[in-house]
Amino acid sequence: MNEVSDEEVALAGLVRVCEPPSASLALFVSRVGPVAAWKGVLERRAPQAVLSATAARTQNVTRQVQDQRAQQDLDTASRSGARLIGPGHQHWPTDAVAAFEGALARGVRGAGPPVALYVRGRTLAELPGNGVTIVGSRASSAYGQRVAGEMSHELACRGLTVISGAALGIDSSAHRAALLAADRNGQPTAPAGSIPYSLQPSTVAVLACGIDRAYPESNRALLDAIAEQGAVVSEYPPGTTPARHRFLVRNRLIAAFGAGTVVVEAGRRSGTLSTAAAAEQLGRLVMAVPGPVTSAMSVGCHLLLADRFAQLVTSADDVLAGLGRSRQPSAGPVGKDEPGSDPRHPTDGLDLDSARVYDSLPARGYCSLDELVTESGLLATQVMGSVAVLEVHGLAKRNGAEWRRVAPTEHR
Amino acid sequence: MNEVSDEEVALAGLVRVCEPPSASLALFVSRVGPVAAWKGVLERRAPQAVLSATAARTQNVTRQVQDQRAQQDLDTASRSGARLIGPGHQHWPTDAVAAFEGALARGVRGAGPPVALYVRGRTLAELPGNGVTIVGSRASSAYGQRVAGEMSHELACRGLTVISGAALGIDSSAHRAALLAADRNGQPTAPAGSIPYSLQPSTVAVLACGIDRAYPESNRALLDAIAEQGAVVSEYPPGTTPARHRFLVRNRLIAAFGAGTVVVEAGRRSGTLSTAAAAEQLGRLVMAVPGPVTSAMSVGCHLLLADRFAQLVTSADDVLAGLGRSRQPSAGPVGKDEPGSDPRHPTDGLDLDSARVYDSLPARGYCSLDELVTESGLLATQVMGSVAVLEVHGLAKRNGAEWRRVAPTEHR
Repeated sequence: MNEVSDEEVALAGLVRVCEPPSASLALFVSRVGPVAAWKGVLERRAPQAVLSATAARTQNVTRQVQDQRAQQDLDTASRSGARLIGPGHQHWPTDAVAAFEGALARGVRGAGPPVALYVRGRTLAELPGNGVTIVGSRASSAYGQRVAGEMSHELACRGLTVISGAALGIDSSAHRAALLAADRNGQPTAPAGSIPYSLQPSTVAVLACGIDRAYPESNRALLDAIAEQGAVVSEYPPGTTPARHRFLVRNRLIAAFGAGTVVVEAGRRSGTLSTAAAAEQLGRLVMAVPGPVTSAMSVGCHLLLADRFAQLVTSADDVLAGLGRSRQPSAGPVGKDEPGSDPRHPTDGLDLDSARVYDSLPARGYCSLDELVTESGLLATQVMGSVAVLEVHGLAKRNGAEWRRVAPTEHR
Repeated sequence: MNEVSDEEVALAGLVRVCEPPSASLALFVSRVGPVAAWKGVLERRAPQAVLSATAARTQNVTRQVQDQRAQQDLDTASRSGARLIGPGHQHWPTDAVAAFEGALARGVRGAGPPVALYVRGRTLAELPGNGVTIVGSRASSAYGQRVAGEMSHELACRGLTVISGAALGIDSSAHRAALLAADRNGQPTAPAGSIPYSLQPSTVAVLACGIDRAYPESNRALLDAIAEQGAVVSEYPPGTTPARHRFLVRNRLIAAFGAGTVVVEAGRRSGTLSTAAAAEQLGRLVMAVPGPVTSAMSVGCHLLLADRFAQLVTSADDVLAGLGRSRQPSAGPVGKDEPGSDPRHPTDGLDLDSARVYDSLPARGYCSLDELVTESGLLATQVMGSVAVLEVHGLAKRNGAEWRRVAPTEHR
């Protein structure tokens, strides 16, 4: 059993007796501190809202038992490599939590800040300023996984923390790709048995269950890797089972930890959309990645975009531009399109008259001024001016009183 | 040689001596009528802007030769199954042309109305009210062709005319799918050699070359089919060759003939984007279909959407909703997403407390009230109320003082 402070026991006790979110309990703790808050809850001397929120799990349980259970939670967490942090801790995500207080002030329901957080891994203090949330469906397509991976990797390489929910599909792709970026950047991995709090995490997984649990079980190794290079976080006491309502409640933390939330893929009624809604309520930029309209996995994204609830993003550059970190938005790969719209078409940038004359010039042989006048529909003086412009650009060649076109390929 | 009216000869002459767009000539014709306008041009008694626009192709040509050429154009058109219509003709697209006048009044450059139109096929008079423009890249993907085809077919089946540019790729897919709809609807095909003006066209192709030309040549059979079931249109005199600047000028007509313009696929600098720009300038709804961010052919669409220049559409229903013809927007196929977000999840529509209690109930075996209180974090009174709600919905089963969950599958 580790040495733990009264404050840690109090926080563990408070987390145990109240199902999140509870704005009243979180505000009570921040006002009187965890030790006094815990004492107040156990002795039923607290604001009525706090007593209501904690009554179900405190009635008929002695104070001694409550403290024992809190101590057991801390032990369980410690064996999982986690510690419990609360407001005032150097690694506490002060700015992320402040967003909840702002949302509560605006009357947003369900925007209770976390009372405390179990954390395996690095500091959360730099969030959300350096964080981007990337979420999406569990039943993701190969397309969605590829986009999530590429976007997450690029953002992590640029020094951002990628926050997600450790679910199968998009979440896992985002976490894995961010971890790869950490490796490539040569960040030191954690010494065995220690918790390197000092470094910004490459990726953060927020759980809807106890910190000691791996859900889904198949992601156990991924969660361990995230704990080494990043951070795994839960506001639930150890042993808590994942349940549908906890995923929805957890999603508000995922949204809060990023400066913006990117939805990569989501079905029509995906739980992912609740993360987008939470991000909007917390004043975060909501972004969505489009996909094939033939894919059910992109329907949720398209709904967000059609309603103009989300900003369309196609790349890490777009995300950075959206967050105001860059002024170089990009809508995706540059591609050769139609013959007439090649990005390097010779008449690009020319005035309309010159473009007309260029199109009127023969590619082989020469033509007279009269022929150019007829073909272009321009006056002779206009044609003369345009031909001069084309000659300057190397796009027309003169032979006496006749001209022909010079194709750009002739310059190469 | 057919019998033609003075008015037809005048219109053919006017079309021949001025490269579109020419707002000044179009307005002159609408003010004084084609015969007087033609006389004015030939005798150099017309507004200065009209004289400038027509000078290049009228100087050094006698009036007799001009009339002969106009007559030849009409003969050529007639041999191609086309006739020339102008303002006042029963099949003239009055409303579409009026949009140019509105744009000119707002100071939009290049918004010259057509002076006259060569038409093979049915009436244009019902456009743009019954028209939707569908455009996209020539170098389209299989995805884009599929989406264009399905959208066009559905819109044509609902009685709309699909307007496009007869290019390879998206344009061809849109035209072909609309023609199939006409066949299925059992609309009569045109008797050989006649022009069934009385029917609304299933699809309209607007050319950037003479009405007697097939461009691309490989679309000759398609253009013939469009002329039978729909209409092929050009504002250029017969024999005019397609040229880059004519595609851009032509695009304003494609945009004008539809109540809205849908961009299905477009590269970063696709000429298709000029059609979208023209649609916006004409006060038409601009719509874009998203696609994979990994496809260069969707970059232009994503730029339109990211800038909020275009409304996102994924289906014919979305297009109809955007045009105010239906109130049932759809963002695509309904798909099963995550297990926790199945559209028919049993707790959908329940209050949060009842959902919490449902998640807390065991799927096998029974649990006590105390266990439910602890697991859900709710008060016993709240749990009792929620269990009652769940029982009413058939989602919980009672055995003495214990409960278990009833999965929806047990009802089936």
